[in-house]
Amino acid sequence: MRNIALKLMYNGTAYHGWQVQKNDVTVCGTLERAIAMVCGGEAIHLTGCGRTDAGVHAECYVANFRTRSRIPVDRLPFAINTHTPEDIVVREALEVPEEFNAIGSCLKKEYTYRIYNSRIKNPFYVNRAYFYPKHLDEEFLNRAARAFEGTHDFAAVRSVGTDVKSTVRTVYYCYVTRQSDLLELKVCANGFLYNMVRAITGTVLYAAEGKLTPEDIPLILERGDRTAAGPTVPPGGLYLTKLWYEDERLNG
Amino acid sequence: MRNIALKLMYNGTAYHGWQVQKNDVTVCGTLERAIAMVCGGEAIHLTGCGRTDAGVHAECYVANFRTRSRIPVDRLPFAINTHTPEDIVVREALEVPEEFNAIGSCLKKEYTYRIYNSRIKNPFYVNRAYFYPKHLDEEFLNRAARAFEGTHDFAAVRSVGTDVKSTVRTVYYCYVTRQSDLLELKVCANGFLYNMVRAITGTVLYAAEGKLTPEDIPLILERGDRTAAGPTVPPGGLYLTKLWYEDERLNG
Repeated sequence: MRNIALKLMYNGTAYHGWQVQKNDVTVCGTLERAIAMVCGGEAIHLTGCGRTDAGVHAECYVANFRTRSRIPVDRLPFAINTHTPEDIVVREALEVPEEFNAIGSCLKKEYTYRIYNSRIKNPFYVNRAYFYPKHLDEEFLNRAARAFEGTHDFAAVRSVGTDVKSTVRTVYYCYVTRQSDLLELKVCANGFLYNMVRAITGTVLYAAEGKLTPEDIPLILERGDRTAAGPTVPPGGLYLTKLWYEDERLNG
Repeated sequence: MRNIALKLMYNGTAYHGWQVQKNDVTVCGTLERAIAMVCGGEAIHLTGCGRTDAGVHAECYVANFRTRSRIPVDRLPFAINTHTPEDIVVREALEVPEEFNAIGSCLKKEYTYRIYNSRIKNPFYVNRAYFYPKHLDEEFLNRAARAFEGTHDFAAVRSVGTDVKSTVRTVYYCYVTRQSDLLELKVCANGFLYNMVRAITGTVLYAAEGKLTPEDIPLILERGDRTAAGPTVPPGGLYLTKLWYEDERLNG
């Protein structure tokens, strides 16, 4: 069996997340059907690099599947794209070693949370950025974001609902920048808990609202009390933006 | 009667253009219903600064209406926005002199046509930019675009379907720039014929494809032969981006 990795991009607005669910339209399910058509009707099982939630986007994403089909990899992107809607795009396909697994082989990931910070809504950011009308000071937000860097137990900034052995992760960087009305919070880690980036962003916004201080964040993490941290912000502002693998062809 | 001007922004994807039509959802019709609710049920007639087509966007737009309602102008944007979908946003409302008319008082306008020029589609530009996979040389496109500048009869680059007294217009500037994979053609004129920017863009692309040369453009304009120019490109790449009025509060 060949093992094939796909580099993808998708606008998650119309989907119930990545992971296949019984009665909902998902990115994974949509792609599996498209790939099956291209690979002669074989049942396709796609393994993704992570479970993005409903409404979350990916500027880059890697998934792999095994197939007996002999279709050349350089023909796969175009062939699959003719069977998918316009909001999912296969950018590249690569032959990878048998043991490669899109999630297990992933070394680290970067997510970006976008906030449209202007007095008036912008119709071009609907489902693309979180609208926050009160002015935010990016220096202050950045100070709160930096408090999440390092190896910590992140139980205070996750939603319950998935089983994980450990809630300890390493955050390599977490910072906030502004370009005109658009704020970006970028987090890179060796793994993410369920809703972790959205809860970190909610906590950083809580700091901006004076509901906690950047200095409180280490204590909140230490206590592991989800109710002490900020709320989970909406999914439309969240993008998977970078991936790192040993095989550098897959990085994006 | 008070005369009130609104500064708007809209994502035109879901609408059959600006102008009210009997059985279609339009930007103007959607706003007129919302304003009527805010102004105590009065019938509202909104005059727009131009007729954008189905699928065309506006980063800025001015429209005016007359009303007996005494609602303060600074409360109007929020009040109207609570009755409109998220893809139409009123940014500001201003009291204007009785004789003001959003189209008649408009001195000039700028439209921007966006082309996503990359080998692979980008799901975040669906309905937002025209996807053109073959590499385009922006220097060459710019040379073709510049040929449209000046006062000319623009009959060769319009679609028939509206009655106009004259097809002569003055184009103050028409140029192409690139930022990474995004090309922008900007045209500023004292008035635009039906589909004029989309036909100018199609003609500039025809030049890039070797189907005509920038030097042919003056002759095509002089002959007024629509079939000699390029095709009308799709609406999703087109944005109204700037407006000029004597009352500078309305410029955006």
